[in-house]
Amino acid sequence: MKLLEDRIRTDGTVKSESVLKVDAFLNHQMDVKLFMAMAEEWQRLFAGKQIDKILTIEASGIGIAAIAASVFDVPVVFAKKSQSINLDGTVYCTRIQSFTHGKVFDVIVSKKFIGEGEHVLLIDDFMANGCAMNGLIEVCEHAGAVVEGIGIAIEKGFQHGGDSLRERGYDLQSLAIVESMDPETGEIVFR
Amino acid sequence: MKLLEDRIRTDGTVKSESVLKVDAFLNHQMDVKLFMAMAEEWQRLFAGKQIDKILTIEASGIGIAAIAASVFDVPVVFAKKSQSINLDGTVYCTRIQSFTHGKVFDVIVSKKFIGEGEHVLLIDDFMANGCAMNGLIEVCEHAGAVVEGIGIAIEKGFQHGGDSLRERGYDLQSLAIVESMDPETGEIVFR
Repeated sequence: MKLLEDRIRTDGTVKSESVLKVDAFLNHQMDVKLFMAMAEEWQRLFAGKQIDKILTIEASGIGIAAIAASVFDVPVVFAKKSQSINLDGTVYCTRIQSFTHGKVFDVIVSKKFIGEGEHVLLIDDFMANGCAMNGLIEVCEHAGAVVEGIGIAIEKGFQHGGDSLRERGYDLQSLAIVESMDPETGEIVFR
Repeated sequence: MKLLEDRIRTDGTVKSESVLKVDAFLNHQMDVKLFMAMAEEWQRLFAGKQIDKILTIEASGIGIAAIAASVFDVPVVFAKKSQSINLDGTVYCTRIQSFTHGKVFDVIVSKKFIGEGEHVLLIDDFMANGCAMNGLIEVCEHAGAVVEGIGIAIEKGFQHGGDSLRERGYDLQSLAIVESMDPETGEIVFR
């Protein structure tokens, strides 16, 4: 998606060969007009598919997924990173290794909100090694829900989480795929 | 706001005299159509005010704030609960005592995204003792930004965080204020 690639070139910063900072518009300050355009692009890419619900993961996926849910006209559920006293014991739980935070954490989704036979679209801001999406896929499998597609804003193509999901047959639509980055020059090559 | 009060009565659960569970539509599964109506109500309540930016706090404020930002046509920033390797050292930091999680955590906002003289609307899903909003107010004070208003979905009136902010002169608009709850009967009294 040219609009997103242009924005990454303009307002993103290459911090290292593997770290791209896009906190000016994607995952700290959020440009919801851009999110609206991204959601409309996913609507085009997933046209003809039945989508009953959007599933994302806290925290930086929530804004994009909420705007996408308003465009797809469906509810959105976000997987929670830690047990809150406000959650029942009746949850799906999975462990996720975070690239950004460099640690493992538990993720939970209440069984009430992902049902058998529901058609789910997974949405997130970034994909690196794919661990977060694999966790959400696991939750959907436990629930007997159908993963209709996966919408990612920025995929790090060089970390192969996305390629692995495509090989497994998932309809993964990343709006920008970074093939390589040069922290010296700031140059970003998109697939 | 009658729409929200009705929804709380229909889909909320009184877990104790102080805990109201609204995870079916507000802070786990999210009804973005309801969020749109809430955002339009805040637009009416804060009409005539200059709003340059919305500030919220992860995680459950983000969905509501993102939809509100699309209605107010401004960017939205969410305060982050822990230091990520993707954030610079140049951040505003404040400590917040969470009622829901029963613990103290650090919250950071990059200095790049809250500027001097900016007019900010604070948005969150819940207000209990007001600690989260006090933390965000502190961030705005450090930045020299103006807190134009505070929009809360559900205020627990019996915990007085909201009354204290009103006494200090803040324009706080809670769309539903719970005065009391009865876990035996499930009855909820709104202010």
